[in-house]
Amino acid sequence: MVSQEVKLLGFWASPFSNRVEWALKLKGVDYEYIEEDIFNKSSRLLELNPVHKRVPVLVHDGKVMAESFILLEYIDETWKQDQLLLPQDPYERSKARFWARVAEEKLLEYSFGAMISHGENKEKALKSAIEVAEKIEEEMKGNNKKFLGGESIGYLDLALGWIAHWLPIWEEVGSMQIVDPSQFPATTAWSKRFLDHPVIKQNLPPRDKMLVYFHERKKILGGSG
Amino acid sequence: MVSQEVKLLGFWASPFSNRVEWALKLKGVDYEYIEEDIFNKSSRLLELNPVHKRVPVLVHDGKVMAESFILLEYIDETWKQDQLLLPQDPYERSKARFWARVAEEKLLEYSFGAMISHGENKEKALKSAIEVAEKIEEEMKGNNKKFLGGESIGYLDLALGWIAHWLPIWEEVGSMQIVDPSQFPATTAWSKRFLDHPVIKQNLPPRDKMLVYFHERKKILGGSG
Repeated sequence: MVSQEVKLLGFWASPFSNRVEWALKLKGVDYEYIEEDIFNKSSRLLELNPVHKRVPVLVHDGKVMAESFILLEYIDETWKQDQLLLPQDPYERSKARFWARVAEEKLLEYSFGAMISHGENKEKALKSAIEVAEKIEEEMKGNNKKFLGGESIGYLDLALGWIAHWLPIWEEVGSMQIVDPSQFPATTAWSKRFLDHPVIKQNLPPRDKMLVYFHERKKILGGSG
Repeated sequence: MVSQEVKLLGFWASPFSNRVEWALKLKGVDYEYIEEDIFNKSSRLLELNPVHKRVPVLVHDGKVMAESFILLEYIDETWKQDQLLLPQDPYERSKARFWARVAEEKLLEYSFGAMISHGENKEKALKSAIEVAEKIEEEMKGNNKKFLGGESIGYLDLALGWIAHWLPIWEEVGSMQIVDPSQFPATTAWSKRFLDHPVIKQNLPPRDKMLVYFHERKKILGGSG
């Protein structure tokens, strides 16, 4: 293999940089991980990602790229060894991209919002989160393979991975339930299989440290309410 | 060619459904266009796109898909004749996807917001819009080809096409200027070349009708201020 330099700027509790790490590990790409303090952004981060000023940022042989879904596609197109993350069929690809965005723009927004809010706002966000989770559950039910990417973990598994590890923590911090196992059997079963995959299992931010971190985020972002 | 059925649900003044039409026309795909009343949504639209309830929706031989950037990728991967919309190099692909999203999530949001708002909110949105437009101008300057996709129109041209036709109308309706030609020579020159392309020129919603429509939108969404 050609010698190459791969660096990933990330933040330990970010589901966005974690999913890029999972992709690099699944592909067997050697990389240097650089932890960024997102509350005191380095000049390096601001220079590399002046538009969004956020992690993850991938630097591959001097080429700088950002935005986690775009990075997943780049990684898939660049390192084609072993498994491909995206399906080959154009319709299946469009579905994977569609549900990745739906979960990100709706379920993640609403559930994080519900965690840090109170009263009527919390109820509203919670209701919206559950509605989207139900649509994702239907999609999960329609999949009879081990993972959403088939027999191996794919793009959509990585995109939704936060549902398996982050969401239960947000539920605990927010004293709320979104994915009730009895109502969401397919999502619950997929979450277990996902977390049980060796590459994922070994690359998850610790639950106890996450609980402390998100309790703190809730306090700062949501006030005392 | 295999017989196929392609339907596009759109709205005449939507930059999102227009860009999908441009892609289908550039690829020479025959399709049936179905105009949707976005203010009185049909049961057909709600059934086909229950998650977002919005246009564009593409139906290809019974396969239903939504979200314009996802549709552009689907069209590119499905109809490979003539030109490809996305570049082949993974880094160039990631850049095209990145700038398409930046323009959509920032420049479009801010400039539409500036158009319909007043006072301090308008000034703030305008400032943010100009800041993003400056970043896009720098990218445009770095491109020495006829189009952002090279010698022929590509994915990023279609994604940014609204800057050439919609933005000047929003500027007029909002009595504001974002892309001042003397400050944005590269964006201005690209806009002219884009609008001059025969497929684009013949597939633009009429300027006068758009002015009336967006004046009306401003009145309804922005209040009298």
